[in-house]
Amino acid sequence: MMDFLEEPIPGVGTYDDFNTIDWVREKSRDRDRHREITNKSKESTWALIHSVSDAFSGWLLMLLIGLLSGSLAGLIDISAHWMTDLKEGICTGGFWFNHEHCCWNSKHVTFEDRDKCPEWNSWSQLIISTNEGAFAYIVNYFMYVLWALLFAFLAVSLVKVFAPYACGSGIPEIKTILSGFIIRGYLGKWTLIIKTITLVLAVSSGLSLGKEGPLVHVACCCGNILCHCFNKYRKNEAKRREVLSAAAAAGVSVAFGAPIGGVLFSLEEVSYYFPLKTLWRSFFAALVAAFTLRSINPFGNSRLVLFYVEFHTPWHLFELVPFILLGIFGGLWGALFIRTNIAWCRKRKTTQLGKYPVIEVLVVTAITAILAFPNEYTRMSTSELISELFNDCGLLDSSKLCDYENRFNTSKGGELPDRPAGAGVYNAMWQLALTLILKIVITIFTFGMKIPSGLFIPSMAVGAIAGRLLGVGMEQLAYYHHDWAIFSSWCSQGADCITPGLYAMVGAAACLGGVTRMTVSLVVIMFELTGGLEYIVPLMAAAMTSKWVADALGREGIYDAHIRLNGYPFLEAKEEFAHKTLAMDVMKPRRNDPLLTVLTQDSMTVEDVETIISETTYSGFPVVVSRESQRLVGFVLRRDLIISIENARKKQDGVVSTSIIYFTEHSPPMPPYTPPTLKLRNILDLSPFTVTDLTPMEIVVDIFRKLGLRQCLVTHNGRLLGIITKKDVLKHIAQMANQDPDSILFN
Amino acid sequence: MMDFLEEPIPGVGTYDDFNTIDWVREKSRDRDRHREITNKSKESTWALIHSVSDAFSGWLLMLLIGLLSGSLAGLIDISAHWMTDLKEGICTGGFWFNHEHCCWNSKHVTFEDRDKCPEWNSWSQLIISTNEGAFAYIVNYFMYVLWALLFAFLAVSLVKVFAPYACGSGIPEIKTILSGFIIRGYLGKWTLIIKTITLVLAVSSGLSLGKEGPLVHVACCCGNILCHCFNKYRKNEAKRREVLSAAAAAGVSVAFGAPIGGVLFSLEEVSYYFPLKTLWRSFFAALVAAFTLRSINPFGNSRLVLFYVEFHTPWHLFELVPFILLGIFGGLWGALFIRTNIAWCRKRKTTQLGKYPVIEVLVVTAITAILAFPNEYTRMSTSELISELFNDCGLLDSSKLCDYENRFNTSKGGELPDRPAGAGVYNAMWQLALTLILKIVITIFTFGMKIPSGLFIPSMAVGAIAGRLLGVGMEQLAYYHHDWAIFSSWCSQGADCITPGLYAMVGAAACLGGVTRMTVSLVVIMFELTGGLEYIVPLMAAAMTSKWVADALGREGIYDAHIRLNGYPFLEAKEEFAHKTLAMDVMKPRRNDPLLTVLTQDSMTVEDVETIISETTYSGFPVVVSRESQRLVGFVLRRDLIISIENARKKQDGVVSTSIIYFTEHSPPMPPYTPPTLKLRNILDLSPFTVTDLTPMEIVVDIFRKLGLRQCLVTHNGRLLGIITKKDVLKHIAQMANQDPDSILFN
Repeated sequence: MMDFLEEPIPGVGTYDDFNTIDWVREKSRDRDRHREITNKSKESTWALIHSVSDAFSGWLLMLLIGLLSGSLAGLIDISAHWMTDLKEGICTGGFWFNHEHCCWNSKHVTFEDRDKCPEWNSWSQLIISTNEGAFAYIVNYFMYVLWALLFAFLAVSLVKVFAPYACGSGIPEIKTILSGFIIRGYLGKWTLIIKTITLVLAVSSGLSLGKEGPLVHVACCCGNILCHCFNKYRKNEAKRREVLSAAAAAGVSVAFGAPIGGVLFSLEEVSYYFPLKTLWRSFFAALVAAFTLRSINPFGNSRLVLFYVEFHTPWHLFELVPFILLGIFGGLWGALFIRTNIAWCRKRKTTQLGKYPVIEVLVVTAITAILAFPNEYTRMSTSELISELFNDCGLLDSSKLCDYENRFNTSKGGELPDRPAGAGVYNAMWQLALTLILKIVITIFTFGMKIPSGLFIPSMAVGAIAGRLLGVGMEQLAYYHHDWAIFSSWCSQGADCITPGLYAMVGAAACLGGVTRMTVSLVVIMFELTGGLEYIVPLMAAAMTSKWVADALGREGIYDAHIRLNGYPFLEAKEEFAHKTLAMDVMKPRRNDPLLTVLTQDSMTVEDVETIISETTYSGFPVVVSRESQRLVGFVLRRDLIISIENARKKQDGVVSTSIIYFTEHSPPMPPYTPPTLKLRNILDLSPFTVTDLTPMEIVVDIFRKLGLRQCLVTHNGRLLGIITKKDVLKHIAQMANQDPDSILFN
Repeated sequence: MMDFLEEPIPGVGTYDDFNTIDWVREKSRDRDRHREITNKSKESTWALIHSVSDAFSGWLLMLLIGLLSGSLAGLIDISAHWMTDLKEGICTGGFWFNHEHCCWNSKHVTFEDRDKCPEWNSWSQLIISTNEGAFAYIVNYFMYVLWALLFAFLAVSLVKVFAPYACGSGIPEIKTILSGFIIRGYLGKWTLIIKTITLVLAVSSGLSLGKEGPLVHVACCCGNILCHCFNKYRKNEAKRREVLSAAAAAGVSVAFGAPIGGVLFSLEEVSYYFPLKTLWRSFFAALVAAFTLRSINPFGNSRLVLFYVEFHTPWHLFELVPFILLGIFGGLWGALFIRTNIAWCRKRKTTQLGKYPVIEVLVVTAITAILAFPNEYTRMSTSELISELFNDCGLLDSSKLCDYENRFNTSKGGELPDRPAGAGVYNAMWQLALTLILKIVITIFTFGMKIPSGLFIPSMAVGAIAGRLLGVGMEQLAYYHHDWAIFSSWCSQGADCITPGLYAMVGAAACLGGVTRMTVSLVVIMFELTGGLEYIVPLMAAAMTSKWVADALGREGIYDAHIRLNGYPFLEAKEEFAHKTLAMDVMKPRRNDPLLTVLTQDSMTVEDVETIISETTYSGFPVVVSRESQRLVGFVLRRDLIISIENARKKQDGVVSTSIIYFTEHSPPMPPYTPPTLKLRNILDLSPFTVTDLTPMEIVVDIFRKLGLRQCLVTHNGRLLGIITKKDVLKHIAQMANQDPDSILFN
C-alpha cells in the first residue's frame, strides 16, 4: 500500500509493457481515490460537483463508447457493402452507390429483376460494352480477381507498415488484456484507424473472413481511447478494464444487433473481472451502440439485426434428431478447424512462411478469388450467403434455393406446403456442397494472416450450408415419404412440415459453438435474431451437442488456443485445476536451488540492494526482519525500488552507496558520522499474500484467479520459504497438462 | 485439508445449523471426489460408466428441477385461479371450472358478454336466487369476505403448525443460504408442500401479495430435495448451492415466463457463487421449466408469459420525460415501502404484535376484503389488474378503461387514433386512484406476515396504476392540445401518438426496480414480456432513474433490508467497503483482551484441549509450533476436535485424559510408560488463510467475499496475532455504517 501522505514519486505504481498488473493494488488505488473525492466533497460546492461528475463519468463514457462504436460499425458496413460490389461493377448514376442502392434509385427496374437496372454496369459493360459471351465473362472474372488482390494488398500493407496490432480478430489479445496484461498500443488510436480501414478492405476482398470479431477489437479501441478523457479511468488499469468489458459488449451488440447477447458474450467469453455494476453499464453501452447503428441504418431496412428471420412453422420433436446431427457436425468442424488452424499458425510462426505476410495474403486471396468467382454462392459476400440460407422461401422469393415445383400453390391457411424440389434447388445443392468444401479449407488458411479477420461469419456459413443441405434433404424425404412412421404422425401431405432455413440457422449456431465454445451467449444471440422463444430448444440442443463433441476432441476454444500459441499469461477461469500438487512443488526456489533472494528491513545499504537488483531479474523482492528468522515484513517491486533509489540519489541530500535502506516505521539506531539513511516504507507492500507450503495448488490457482494476484509468498510455520508468480502457476498448469511449460513467455 | 488415506470419522466435515460453510473446503472436497472418480474410471468399465453418469448427473438434475418446478407452477396457477373465482361464485356446469372456463364451455354466451353465462352462479344467485338489488350485493359482499377470511385462516394456520419457514417470499433467506449459510429445513419437503398449498390460499384470499417471489422458494425447495437423489450434490454444500442458483432461475422463469430474465435474476440478485458452468445449466433448467409450464397451459392461451402485450405505436423521444417521472415515482415508492415495511416488521419482532400472527393475518385480510369488494379494480386479482392496465385498447375491448368516445372510428392505417376519454375512462381513473392508495398502504402491512407473500406483483400493480393514470393524462393532453409545441412536431390530429399501456408497463418496471433494485434482469424480464427491442429504452430509462432515486434515499433493496433485519450473516458482494481501517482494528483479541486461545502442535494433553473446549465457545482454534514462537501450523475446527476426541476415547486403545495430542507428521519423542498419543493431523487444516495485521480491511473484505472464507488468521512479521471471522467482518461493516453491530446474530 502506498503511503499517500508522502509525495508520490513519478513512475511508482506503473507497469512495464508485456507485464501483468496487480489487481489488488489497482483496486485499492481506485478506492483511495474515491475516498479522497468523497471526503473532499463535504468541503466545498465545487468539490461536491466534482464528486457527482466523477460518479456519473462512467455512464457518460458508456454513452460515448456506444455512440462511437455504433457509428464506426455503420461506416464499416456501408463501405464494405460498396467495395464488395465494386469488384463486380460500378454505378453510373453515382459511383458512390452500391448495387442495391443504384437500382433502388433507378426507374427502369421491375419487381422480378430487382438486381438488374441500366445504371448498374458490370466491368465488361464498361470495358467492352457487353455483358454477354465468354469474353465478357473473362473480363468480369479478371476484374473481380484484380480488385480482390488490390484490396488485400492494401490491407496487408497498411497493417504491416502502420499498425501490426491491427491484424487478426483481436479477441485472444483482448481476453488477455482484460485478464490483467499490458500490451501498449494494442488498443491505441493507430490500431483503431488502421483496423477500421483494413477491415473494410479485407472484407471487400472476398476472403473467407468476417467483420464481427474485429468489430469487438474496434469497440475496445474506442473504449480505451475514450478512457483518456476521464481521470478515473486513464490512471487506473483495473477501472479501465471494466470499461473495456463494456466496450466488448457494445462490439458484439453492433456486430449482430443483439445487445443482450453482446453483454452475455462479454460476460461469458471475454471478461475476467465483471462486477454487477459493469453488467448494467455494459448493457447500456450495448443498447446505445445498437440504436446508433440502427439510426445509421446501413442495411436500408430499419432492422437492427444482421440476419433477420421469421419462421412460420413450429418444429416437431422428431426434428431434434437432425438438429443433434448438426450439433455433432458443428463439434467436429470446430475441433478440426482449431487443430488445423493452430498447426498452420504454428508453422507460420516457426518457418520462413511468417516472413512473407504480403505474399501469403496475396496468394490466399488469389486462390480464393479464382475459385470463388465461378460459383455464385462463393462470389456473393458471406453474410449475404448466410442471409439467403436462413431465409424461409416465401411466395415472392425468386432465388434458386426457392425454385420448387408448384411454387405458387398455397395451402388453405395461406402457407406454403412442402413441395418437390425443382431443378434450381438441385443445382443450388451442388453449388452449396462445393462452397462448403471451399469454405472449410480456405478458412483454415485465412484466419491468422496479417489482416483483420474474424471467424464468426465463416463458421456460421459452414454450418448454415450444412444445415440447409440437411434441411432440404429432410424436406424432400418428408414430401416423398410422408407415409413413413417417423413422419406420418405429424406431417400430412400438403402441409408445411420442415423449414430448411431453420436447419441452416441451427447449423450455423452449432458450428459457431464448436469453434468458440460459447454457450448461453450463442443461444441468446440467435434468439435475438429470430425474436421468438419457439426456436430456442433446437438451438440449445445443437449448441450443447456441439460443445460436448468439440470438448471431447480438444478442451480449448479457438481463442484460448491462440492465446496459448502466443504464450500470453492467461489464467483460464473456466477450467478447474484437477491435480493434487502442493504449493511447495511449484514455488521458487526449488529444493536444490540457492535460497530465495530477500531484502532485510533495516540492515542493507543502497549498494547491497543495487547489487541484488543488477544480479537478478526478479520483478520483486520479499522484505524480512532478518535473514536468520526469515520472518516476512512485506514485498517490494523491482521497478519501484529502482525508481525510488534513483530518485533519492538525485534529490535527497547525501544518500550515497553506503546509506542504509530501511523499511521500518522508524530509522534504526545509527552510529554517529554515518551517511543519511533512506526510508522506503512508502513503496513497501505491507500486506503481501501468503500461503503455507502445504496449500494444495488447486486453492492457490483459485486465489490467483479470483483475486487477480501477480505473486504470492510461501511460508512454512511462519518462516518465509519461497515465492509463486503467475508465470510459475501457468507453467505448472501447462506441465500438468503435458504441454511445454516454456510456451508461457511473459510475466 | 483432510487426509483421505485415513478412514474419515463420521461427522467430521459437516456443519451445525445456523452456521456458515467454508467454501474453500467444500470445493476442495468436491475436487477430491472428482479426482477419485476420474482416476478409478480407467480401471474398469463399470467405473467408467459411473464417471460418465456422474458428469451428466448435473444435467439430469436440471431437467428434473425444470419439470418439477414447471409442473408445480402450473398447478399453483390453476388452483389459484379457481379459488380466486370461488370467492365470487361457483360453476354449476362443474364446480372445478373457474369463471372463464365455465363460460368457455357454455353455449349461452355471446361475444360481447364473455363473462356472463347461466352456468356461472354468483353466491347471491345460489343463496337468494337473484343477482339484483342491494340484498344480493350484501350477500355477495359477505361471501367474498368470508371466503377471503377462510383462505387466509387456513394459510396462516398451516404455516404456523406445519412449516414456519414457509412464510414470506423466501428470497432473503435464499440469498443468505446461497452465500453459504445453513438453515436446516428451510428448503425441505415440508416447506415445499406447505408453501405450495398456502401460496394458493394466500393468493386466493385477495391479499395484496403475489406468487412470484414464493415461486422462487418453491423451485429452490424442488432443487434441494432433488439433490438428495445425487451423491455429488447431497454431500457437498458448495455443489448444492450451484443447483439452488439454477433452481432460482427456474423459479423466476416460470413466474414470468422469462427464461433469460430468470437466469439474469439469479445471477444479479440471488446468487453468490455463480461460475459460468452454472450459467449454462441454469439456462437449461429455466427453459425446461418454462416449456413445462407452457405445455400445462394454465392461462389457456398458449402464452408463456404472464402479461403478454403487443404495442403498435413507437414511442417518441419527448415521452422520455414522463417515463423518467415514472422512474422517480418508482424510486420514491421503493424507498417509502422499504422504510415503512422494515419499521413495521421491526415492530412486529419486538412488540406483542408478533405473538398473534393468526389474528394479524385475519385482521389484514378482513380490511383488505372489505375495502376491496366495492371497487372492481381491487376486487379482481392483482395479476388480472396488471394485465388490464398493460393492455393497449383494441377495437373489441369492452372494458371501462377502453371506453373512449368514437370508439369504433379507425384511422386510415386501420389503427386507433388518440380519442377523447369517455365517462367510463373518467370513472376508471377515480377507481384506479383509490386502488393505488389502498395498494400502497395495505402492501406495507402485508409483506412480512406469516403467510407466503411475494411483492413483485403488488409493486408492479402500484407502478402500473400510476403509469396508466399518467398515460391516459398524457393521451388526453395530446388530444386536446396537439397544437402545443411539445406535441405539434410528432403528434398530428387523428394519429395514435400515446399508448397508455406502455406507460403502465414502464411504471411497473420502475416500481419493481425501486423496491428490489434489480437492473439488467428487470429490463430483460420486461423485454421478454413485450418481445421487442423497441421499448427497451423507455424501460431502461425508468429503471435507471428509479434505482438512482431509491439509492439516494437508502442504499438497500428490500431483500437486503430483510436480511439485515433478521441478522443473517450475509456479506454483500455489490457494495464496496469504503473505509480505511486495517485488519488489526477488527481482529480478535482486541488490544487489551487476553491472548488468542491457541493449541500447540505436540505438547498438549487431551485434558488440556478439553478444558479449552469447555471454557471457550470459539468455533475453531489455531495450532502453533509453541506458545513462545507463535508460529502458525494450521487451524482446527471445534466441531471436528470434539468429534475426534470422543471417537478416540471410544475406539482407540488407551487414549486417556493425559494422552498427548499431536498435530505433527510424526509422534513427538515420549518418555517410556506414558499413555498412547493421539494423532489429529487429519482434522488439521494445513493451509489456513492468513493476512498481515496491516492489511487494509477493504482487501480483507474482498478476500472473504471472493473466496467464501469463514475465518482468516492475522499475523505480524510471521507471528500469529489474532483471528477475523465472517461475523467480525460483518459487525465491523455494520459499525462503520453506523448501524448496530450486534444485529448480526449468527456465525
